[in-house]
Amino acid sequence: MTDRLEQQIAFLNEADKLKSVNRGTLLCDASRRENSAEHSWHLTLYALVLADQAGPDVDITRVIKMLILHDLVEIDAGDNPIFGDYDPAEMEAQELAAADRIFGLLPIDLRDDLRATWEEFEANTTPSAQFAKSLDRFQPPMQNLAAGGGSWVEYSVTEEQFITKVGSKIKNGAPGLWAFAQKKVSTWFAANR
Amino acid sequence: MTDRLEQQIAFLNEADKLKSVNRGTLLCDASRRENSAEHSWHLTLYALVLADQAGPDVDITRVIKMLILHDLVEIDAGDNPIFGDYDPAEMEAQELAAADRIFGLLPIDLRDDLRATWEEFEANTTPSAQFAKSLDRFQPPMQNLAAGGGSWVEYSVTEEQFITKVGSKIKNGAPGLWAFAQKKVSTWFAANR
Repeated sequence: MTDRLEQQIAFLNEADKLKSVNRGTLLCDASRRENSAEHSWHLTLYALVLADQAGPDVDITRVIKMLILHDLVEIDAGDNPIFGDYDPAEMEAQELAAADRIFGLLPIDLRDDLRATWEEFEANTTPSAQFAKSLDRFQPPMQNLAAGGGSWVEYSVTEEQFITKVGSKIKNGAPGLWAFAQKKVSTWFAANR
Repeated sequence: MTDRLEQQIAFLNEADKLKSVNRGTLLCDASRRENSAEHSWHLTLYALVLADQAGPDVDITRVIKMLILHDLVEIDAGDNPIFGDYDPAEMEAQELAAADRIFGLLPIDLRDDLRATWEEFEANTTPSAQFAKSLDRFQPPMQNLAAGGGSWVEYSVTEEQFITKVGSKIKNGAPGLWAFAQKKVSTWFAANR
């Protein structure tokens, strides 16, 4: 039992490094970049508060579990800002290697359970994964709107790029949130481009 | 529906401020203080990974919900480091006022649901609240051990103070974690006092 606990704590201490992975998105007050650990927390709160936007086949408990775990691979692979310049195939390979190493720190039963949850999120095919992914895409524009543009300004994003890269994913799992975001984002781009 | 969503987003944007509330605890690499948002995320991961340490009447889904919400009142009331100097009655009054204001941003159904969850955590009487509270007390010593002492050094904490203020709470909801922590913490204090 002590060996098992030692493994569990080693994993939890390793996970602490997610607090030092910075994202492209700024905090709402634009004071600094958001890190992936606090982003993950914020998304779990989004899931609690916006559960009424989920379809009937969505399991919110599972959504929250995915959101807790979804960015852990960034400890090794880093965060790739969605409007930044990166190779998706290389990113996927890095994230898979990261999942092997990081979930591999756990006792086997937990490793398999958490790894399967992360893979469900990544595959983005179940209703719960699609809703989780939609929240992950919906939160940054809410932060950008609050921060006066945030990463849209930094990466010189156009409204068309936003709709293609972000909008489609929000709409997929949370059409009500997309209708809400689209109106606000469109107003922002009209005033700032 | 739009008014409801506006309220939900106003709450979620307000919650962003928890990322700027710093705690007494350092990150595992001692590079900076931990903030209450990333701490809350880390605790939800503790709950997923250490669920096997919970008693039979603990509902882990409810534990995670409590941990997501438990520190939101610190947006107004600040974090009071457990070994710091503060007036518990004054802190409680500040946290109650904060709960009124912050949960009060939500639509009434969500306000009542999240407020009740936070109150269950604070009351610390149900098995789920006791396990959640134990994790909240168990994580900082794990960080301190990794960081070479962390807040124990800063606040000149004695082993007796640790056992009284922290150990009793860990033991209450997670006796297995207390047995694990006590041995490690005792070794640290023997080597560093």
